[in-house]
Amino acid sequence: MRLARFRTADGGAGFGVVERDAVARLDHRIPSFEHLLGGPVVPRAEDPRVALSNVEWLPPVGAHPKIICVGFNYAAHASESERDSAAPEHPTLFTRFPDSLVGAGTPVVRPFDDNSLDWEGEAALVISTGGRRIAAAEAWRHIAGVTCMAENSVRTWQLHSGQATAGKNWAATGAAGPWLTTTDELGTAPLRVTTRLNGTVVQDDTTDRLAFGFADIVAYVSTFTPLRPGDLIATGTPKGIGFRMSPPRFLRPGDEVEVEVSGVGVLRHGVVDEAVAR
Amino acid sequence: MRLARFRTADGGAGFGVVERDAVARLDHRIPSFEHLLGGPVVPRAEDPRVALSNVEWLPPVGAHPKIICVGFNYAAHASESERDSAAPEHPTLFTRFPDSLVGAGTPVVRPFDDNSLDWEGEAALVISTGGRRIAAAEAWRHIAGVTCMAENSVRTWQLHSGQATAGKNWAATGAAGPWLTTTDELGTAPLRVTTRLNGTVVQDDTTDRLAFGFADIVAYVSTFTPLRPGDLIATGTPKGIGFRMSPPRFLRPGDEVEVEVSGVGVLRHGVVDEAVAR
Repeated sequence: MRLARFRTADGGAGFGVVERDAVARLDHRIPSFEHLLGGPVVPRAEDPRVALSNVEWLPPVGAHPKIICVGFNYAAHASESERDSAAPEHPTLFTRFPDSLVGAGTPVVRPFDDNSLDWEGEAALVISTGGRRIAAAEAWRHIAGVTCMAENSVRTWQLHSGQATAGKNWAATGAAGPWLTTTDELGTAPLRVTTRLNGTVVQDDTTDRLAFGFADIVAYVSTFTPLRPGDLIATGTPKGIGFRMSPPRFLRPGDEVEVEVSGVGVLRHGVVDEAVAR
Repeated sequence: MRLARFRTADGGAGFGVVERDAVARLDHRIPSFEHLLGGPVVPRAEDPRVALSNVEWLPPVGAHPKIICVGFNYAAHASESERDSAAPEHPTLFTRFPDSLVGAGTPVVRPFDDNSLDWEGEAALVISTGGRRIAAAEAWRHIAGVTCMAENSVRTWQLHSGQATAGKNWAATGAAGPWLTTTDELGTAPLRVTTRLNGTVVQDDTTDRLAFGFADIVAYVSTFTPLRPGDLIATGTPKGIGFRMSPPRFLRPGDEVEVEVSGVGVLRHGVVDEAVAR
């Protein structure tokens, strides 16, 4: 199943199950999106439907999610980033504030005073059942599903210090969605992560080549912090970021980015400039 | 004024103004702690009082705060950390999840499988009025006040990768409080930050020696992320962490840590071991 959060034309927010042409709304009979993540809920004929054309996607996460991102998790990207591409002993982690992400279809915002906004297509995990010190062997039972993530970064600010925080948390620079596909549909086979810029493939790799796989990441993160339903974990970006092109190619207004995760779907977003006025 | 959040013996949560021996509860007539941060509210004779002895402090922050921490902001600490202690061009930032902090008086939790929990006494800012791209000259109007913070870190995990995240986000390892003292009482004069371990001073410095002062930090952070009422910004720890003692001295059950910020108060916390069972 595909589970999503959205706004409708009248400004209301909802969540439900994505069908072929519509979303079956479940927010009328289920208390929260987090509840929906916790177990399979089958839409009923009487659940209201909203046409996909009338939906504005929101990131498919909880109300106040922890958003944790793994860096340098594909060896080829670690190598292009002038990192040691040998298998690291531990994951590299940073965090994003929820307001750094928009939903699929909403343009991301390029700072008016910095032109180094860069793409990072990723597969991201949405947590179903929370937990602390989750064993890797149990991790799949805690993952609701996988979504597409544009874990975009403002490179100059990412490199202001040794910590990536400032480059990873610009408001509305990244995106997640349009929905998560539940693990019962995906299975545990490798997923292909492909990023396209204006139709041209710029990143393309498969999750069997992650240094730390989905289960290992969940185990590591939950060792120190309790995971909760609706938390989001970005699993790392493949080789092919704009910063490492020659010359560098950063995002600019008019660009269209697509992040496709096989079996999940395609996240599309445009780019607009931040308004100069406060 | 001293503004605080707390739990009472019956398990209820409240907030209010701390007086000599009691807290004047304001949660009966003000919608949220964030509202209280936004403007001066004078307790009335009819506001209920809770004796300080019946209060369990909670961190004096909003319901879902952004918690942003500045690293290496005192030159002497940067130096002991084998960092270049010359004035850096930009602040080093990392983030903490709210559940990594307890209130004053509650013991912090040492992981059962790691003994490298270390102290970091700091002065921390609580945001009153939110904003984006706040100019340094305007920053004081956005700061509700200052609280004491035990920005404790699990050193081995902090050093697992180049990003500090994993060492800074262990559940219930840090603390903030017991209250914030509002800026109208503090003024803008330097504050003294002192950490005592079992009564012995281990860290002691003044905020005029910060590489990035309070206003500069607010300006830098709000450039990329909107600040909101109740957000918390830890401004950096002075020299004297246990990790750099010879031999290293880490926190263990039975220790008592005090973080004092002049004009604000003293945050005290003990240390307990994490229960092994899940």
